[in-house]
Amino acid sequence: MKFFKVPEPTIMRLSLYSRILEQLEERGVPIISSVELGDAVGINSGVVRKDLSMFGEFGVRGVGYNVRELRDNIRKLLGQDRNWPVIIVGAGHLGSSLAAYPGFRQRGFDVVALVDTDPEKIGSTIIDKIVVSWEEAEKLIKEHGVRMAILAVPADSVQAVAQQLTDLGIEAILNFSPIILKGPSKAQVQNVDLTVYFDLMRFTQNLNDNGLRPQASNVRGIAVR
Amino acid sequence: MKFFKVPEPTIMRLSLYSRILEQLEERGVPIISSVELGDAVGINSGVVRKDLSMFGEFGVRGVGYNVRELRDNIRKLLGQDRNWPVIIVGAGHLGSSLAAYPGFRQRGFDVVALVDTDPEKIGSTIIDKIVVSWEEAEKLIKEHGVRMAILAVPADSVQAVAQQLTDLGIEAILNFSPIILKGPSKAQVQNVDLTVYFDLMRFTQNLNDNGLRPQASNVRGIAVR
Repeated sequence: MKFFKVPEPTIMRLSLYSRILEQLEERGVPIISSVELGDAVGINSGVVRKDLSMFGEFGVRGVGYNVRELRDNIRKLLGQDRNWPVIIVGAGHLGSSLAAYPGFRQRGFDVVALVDTDPEKIGSTIIDKIVVSWEEAEKLIKEHGVRMAILAVPADSVQAVAQQLTDLGIEAILNFSPIILKGPSKAQVQNVDLTVYFDLMRFTQNLNDNGLRPQASNVRGIAVR
Repeated sequence: MKFFKVPEPTIMRLSLYSRILEQLEERGVPIISSVELGDAVGINSGVVRKDLSMFGEFGVRGVGYNVRELRDNIRKLLGQDRNWPVIIVGAGHLGSSLAAYPGFRQRGFDVVALVDTDPEKIGSTIIDKIVVSWEEAEKLIKEHGVRMAILAVPADSVQAVAQQLTDLGIEAILNFSPIILKGPSKAQVQNVDLTVYFDLMRFTQNLNDNGLRPQASNVRGIAVR
């Protein structure tokens, strides 16, 4: 058995490369250099080469990478070449908008249903997705082999809902709810806090207002887990 | 004039600390150690101490940080103690959901209006926010001193809209549209690509399916700019 130890930033950059490569392929570009790819994503070409060499992609020195080949390999590596059923828990504003987010289908994610406890919402549709009860969700999860869930519920129910999901066999949870979810230990958890981006953007403006001149730092990262 | 060179990961962690500290204050907790704070955010206590020492917050050895004091100082540093008017460009699903995102108001962001070019949408309200034309947006930006904008428009209009915004005096743009926005150089730009988080979550599942066992890496980061 092979072990992979890949830092999250690398995986996230692979995701960005794949998007750029898709756009290049649509435009009929056959070859791209690490400098061009780095430029499109906003990072140094050395990082691009290092990332890709981790997966055996070396390109041709002085020529570059074959766009279609590289795209196909990254797609396979990230599992973008297959269809991944997901459920969204919470059919409020956040859950509804996530159901409508166009990027998901494009990336091979298929929202099977939204789950909610509100009887007013159960049975309704959001865009073309049905809102179901937990009882129905359990059936759908088994039927479709759903292993991933998106959490968009109020802060005080996050932990309980996450436990419920893992009990139903969910292996990975992407938490958009406004609280950091820890565990359950059986599932992989990824927290996404949108306000972090706002604070980041505001930081510079705020220093400007206080007469301090911030210097741009090209270190990029996020510490959410 | 003082220069600040603060890495983005630090600012993002400050944003996370401030949320945890708010929750602690609500629960009446007076003191927190760097270990506890690190644990709540999911990082090493050494990183917490280093982050806070950058801004002159040293805590008391063997005791910890005063929760309210630390929260107030981080709020000031991040500008969370003031009201920041923002406009959202694009009144589609994404723009509407961002308008409804409860975290923004809580963090001192005030959505003045949504801007759209669709005559069917102009004049309507989303939650309690009005959808306006670009002409009206221009007036509102001046009136309210809006310096930040959120982009939620189709990929092919991102670049033009960003230019239009900076021409109207917008200084910072948070781009949720499904394409990486580069420049305009006068404005600070932050790209947020939600599909990156999905790829990250799927990566582990995909390796599992292929009989490879991924090892967790505690390096956390994101390369979007």
